[in-house]
Amino acid sequence: MGTEKTMNPFGVELIRQIRALDQFGNWSKVSDEELLIKKYVKTKDELKSVPVIADIDEMMINDIKMIYKAIALSFERQTGVVCNVIMEMSHEGFGRCAVLTDRICIVDKYFKDAHRFSFRTLDALFDEGDKNLARAISIYEQYKPCTEQQG
Amino acid sequence: MGTEKTMNPFGVELIRQIRALDQFGNWSKVSDEELLIKKYVKTKDELKSVPVIADIDEMMINDIKMIYKAIALSFERQTGVVCNVIMEMSHEGFGRCAVLTDRICIVDKYFKDAHRFSFRTLDALFDEGDKNLARAISIYEQYKPCTEQQG
Repeated sequence: MGTEKTMNPFGVELIRQIRALDQFGNWSKVSDEELLIKKYVKTKDELKSVPVIADIDEMMINDIKMIYKAIALSFERQTGVVCNVIMEMSHEGFGRCAVLTDRICIVDKYFKDAHRFSFRTLDALFDEGDKNLARAISIYEQYKPCTEQQG
Repeated sequence: MGTEKTMNPFGVELIRQIRALDQFGNWSKVSDEELLIKKYVKTKDELKSVPVIADIDEMMINDIKMIYKAIALSFERQTGVVCNVIMEMSHEGFGRCAVLTDRICIVDKYFKDAHRFSFRTLDALFDEGDKNLARAISIYEQYKPCTEQQG
């Protein structure tokens, strides 16, 4: 738990989700940092061993979705506005993920070669979360005035 | 082609898509009306023969998605604004479909038991298209003022 100091709120949300879904305790003996590295960090050398064309498995799709769920949850925590994640992914690893509050799309991300989806460092993962969250909040602020009219 | 008189623009768009994707000409000898009925219309009696709990197949997911693609295309034709369909569907037939223009979610539809997804009459299908299209345009109009700010 000593590693949580370097984690940003997004990282904490992400690890909380992974732990919550770990119903058989597979990861119970792995530290938070190790677990995130295992799931999301690949060095350049490791990436070389991943084929360029390959099928993506359900587990990896879920792992990617969890990043956006964590962003959605962090957004909810900061703004009090409910949002949802919707993700479409072909088995070749082409897809799209959107986070929606009622009518506003606050995160919109396209994937190709999603089976190679990874970050070079843990900090890059955290930055991605922070960047998306900040952008989500600014988009929400921009569109919010329009939500207040009748729809 | 005599049937097209009763078809609304949404129906024309839908049939156009089905024909465009019919690369092996499976449906080339079936009339537009028959084809739409085959794909989307089930009478109450026919519906009784569909199991309540079942898996949904890829083809049916695509057929459902095509309805929303046709709505998206009709929207584009009317407003000149590009939009996209994103659909997530579990193999049990639970899912969600959203049509997005840049940041605005103009159609948001949830499914359960999607393997039973059907309309009682062809007119009900056309009404669904018209209703969604009208709602999409009104939502777009509502949120449009906010898109003009910088984002």
